[in-house]
Amino acid sequence: MATRDQVRRQLHLNLFLHDTGHHEASWRLPESDPHAHLSLEAHQHLARVAEAARFDSLFLADSPVLWGDPGRRPSGKIEPTVLLAALAVSTSRIGLIATASTSYNEPFNLARRLASVDHLSGGRAGWNIVTTAGDAAARNFGLDEQPLHRSRYERADEFLQVATRLWDSWSDDAVVADKEAGVHALRERVRSIDHRGRFFKVDGPLNLARSPQGYPLLVQAGSSEDGKEFAAQWAEAIFTAQPTLEESQQFYADIKRRVAAAGRNPEHVLVLPGIVPVIGETEAEARELDAELDRLIAPQYAVVQLARTLGVDAGRLQLDRPLPADLPDEDAIEGAKSRRTLIVEWARRERLTVRELIGKLGGGRGHRTFTGTPVQVADSIQHYFENGAADGFNIMPAVLPSGLEAFTRHVVPILQERGLFRTEYAGSTLREHYGLPRPENRLDVLAVENRRPA
Amino acid sequence: MATRDQVRRQLHLNLFLHDTGHHEASWRLPESDPHAHLSLEAHQHLARVAEAARFDSLFLADSPVLWGDPGRRPSGKIEPTVLLAALAVSTSRIGLIATASTSYNEPFNLARRLASVDHLSGGRAGWNIVTTAGDAAARNFGLDEQPLHRSRYERADEFLQVATRLWDSWSDDAVVADKEAGVHALRERVRSIDHRGRFFKVDGPLNLARSPQGYPLLVQAGSSEDGKEFAAQWAEAIFTAQPTLEESQQFYADIKRRVAAAGRNPEHVLVLPGIVPVIGETEAEARELDAELDRLIAPQYAVVQLARTLGVDAGRLQLDRPLPADLPDEDAIEGAKSRRTLIVEWARRERLTVRELIGKLGGGRGHRTFTGTPVQVADSIQHYFENGAADGFNIMPAVLPSGLEAFTRHVVPILQERGLFRTEYAGSTLREHYGLPRPENRLDVLAVENRRPA
Repeated sequence: MATRDQVRRQLHLNLFLHDTGHHEASWRLPESDPHAHLSLEAHQHLARVAEAARFDSLFLADSPVLWGDPGRRPSGKIEPTVLLAALAVSTSRIGLIATASTSYNEPFNLARRLASVDHLSGGRAGWNIVTTAGDAAARNFGLDEQPLHRSRYERADEFLQVATRLWDSWSDDAVVADKEAGVHALRERVRSIDHRGRFFKVDGPLNLARSPQGYPLLVQAGSSEDGKEFAAQWAEAIFTAQPTLEESQQFYADIKRRVAAAGRNPEHVLVLPGIVPVIGETEAEARELDAELDRLIAPQYAVVQLARTLGVDAGRLQLDRPLPADLPDEDAIEGAKSRRTLIVEWARRERLTVRELIGKLGGGRGHRTFTGTPVQVADSIQHYFENGAADGFNIMPAVLPSGLEAFTRHVVPILQERGLFRTEYAGSTLREHYGLPRPENRLDVLAVENRRPA
Repeated sequence: MATRDQVRRQLHLNLFLHDTGHHEASWRLPESDPHAHLSLEAHQHLARVAEAARFDSLFLADSPVLWGDPGRRPSGKIEPTVLLAALAVSTSRIGLIATASTSYNEPFNLARRLASVDHLSGGRAGWNIVTTAGDAAARNFGLDEQPLHRSRYERADEFLQVATRLWDSWSDDAVVADKEAGVHALRERVRSIDHRGRFFKVDGPLNLARSPQGYPLLVQAGSSEDGKEFAAQWAEAIFTAQPTLEESQQFYADIKRRVAAAGRNPEHVLVLPGIVPVIGETEAEARELDAELDRLIAPQYAVVQLARTLGVDAGRLQLDRPLPADLPDEDAIEGAKSRRTLIVEWARRERLTVRELIGKLGGGRGHRTFTGTPVQVADSIQHYFENGAADGFNIMPAVLPSGLEAFTRHVVPILQERGLFRTEYAGSTLREHYGLPRPENRLDVLAVENRRPA
């Protein structure tokens, strides 16, 4: 019989879907379908490969704006809640995590769509909560420029208050479906929420019974100060870009400390750094694949994108020179704060030219690219996992589907042999895969407290 | 060889999905699954039955509010764009029409979700455009009461201007996917829309390539004066509740006239009245099924619902008396104008008591209930179709799935034998099923005009 010590702590793996792969130039490879970003079949294939390898979940990034230059690479995406509903039919166990913005949605509509995906998938929905940086997105929603960083997070916090109360507006046992009596639900267990706040006024109840997971799994990826405080309050899983072991360890410790300070159990918040595995049978083969991709990057487009991220004019970046010394202050940019800082620090530390920096970003966009053999990749994952740097990984193959297939065929079996990763799903919901509790219904708790004699 | 005269004008059939059926009490039948409204499998089954019978489309009603009394019948629904994305995977030909509100959505988000369903389904998406009556919905979106009827339609009109321009923001030939040159899309064929209006300010472009149908099929169901004018401008198919042949004929002629007056081709706007077919092997059997359902209606709940629709206090309605004479004026109610008028006129014309009215509404909710044998139902459909009352029907079975199965098994073959309804799908998109053109890209037309020498 297995004792507590014999059951190893289990690693969690999420697949970050990204049409032909996370490398900028992946769509230009002979093997790639340049229309994959709009293809149901391409997404179904990726979801099924990840599910066959027993991944915890897959994840779709998103922003309600045409992001990047459509001349340069596949642009524009199927909206994630809609795409994940389709993938719910094509899979049976893997978790399905959609990115959606708290700045450019109404809580009633988004809470309902996420609960809808949770119902349709039998409890496999997750929500990557973003506040959406950038003026371009704001200009699709009646604004001239984006709200301030702090204000976006204040709205996000109130959005979560509203959404969670809507998800709690039906008791789990509200529906009795008593045909004989002609009573479908107990009306006193379907309650309005009457929220009155700074950003929202929402009566409720939600027009949907409580979903299998209670709430979708709450995921977050912002690494700014506001973002980490928000994560400490709300997140149950955190995606993060950390290029080195030391930075991962610092981030991991920082998050767990903040979660504890917020009165929550640090074990109920999983930290999943991104990793871009570039896998070859030999180290040399892996490096050659890496180099082939970098050669395909069209630098004239990449410079414009990098300049936008850094908040400088593209004319100031020269391909074979380092970054300019006088980049604008972090606080002057109301965008994705931490990613910019990370890129600049990294370029300076490694003394990269603009061209070299673009090559590194083309692969990992600030995430850790790991080039090597399957055993080397598995070793690295295990080392992070066992040294306070990760509870699992956000797997970001440079090329899809081949990079995912290489990972599931060659790396996952090693992790399974080492007892670090499941060989079968134990539960059926995303929360069960991640070992996270189903949230109690806070409106039920309140109702019970109100019934107690004073 | 078929000549033009030998090819009969073709009837169109849409399935109006409604969990266990359109009769209020259908969920209480022994055969009914009272959890069908939340079940993927139940919806998949209905979609597959309708597709096997070559229905043009299926349709989901919706409102962003908990509608009706959850004690009385199954309440709360899976959000339609999400559910239809799942059904797109489970079917291959049938059209998929989602209801969504112009009052409580942002055009960027909704245009994108509908285009997403169109991409995922290979061109089978439709949008039933509603402005959403009622203060309860408004109170889920920061308002104290609903905007005025006229103002809701003005917003709807501007919403459609924005949505169609977003759908046109990518030329159909924008994506070239030239791997060699490293050019994915031609940037000059992906254009911002820079809309500045009374309700919306949206820069665009949409973050999604133009979808297979160009626009989803545009459907509308409002029958108020504002609603019909909106339909004449925008709708390509119209769902309507008309209890008699004469009313259907008047409505049909009125709509076609308005469409022509708006400068559009009346053949490109299909009128589909609702019909609740209650089918028995004999007339007596059909009537018994009807009566059984009416006995299951719980009157204490139904009175409250009827009072809300009529805008009166429930205490003023007595079960075995006619409606009160002094009902509030149509103009005093900022709701679903035409349905209320229709119900009141009907009750007065047929001298119905409140109890009898509730029975009729329980089946058809203002739509035409037709009780009879398969041949009688087919005769009635043909009579409407050939006498200027309908281009097809919105089929609303009182009980699901059995009422749909009875219709597809017994009525559809009769319509097929008579040459009125397809035996195979000829096209693959919803527009092709309905015989409607794919909309040209108006931003392309503008661009060509701008290139012409002056």
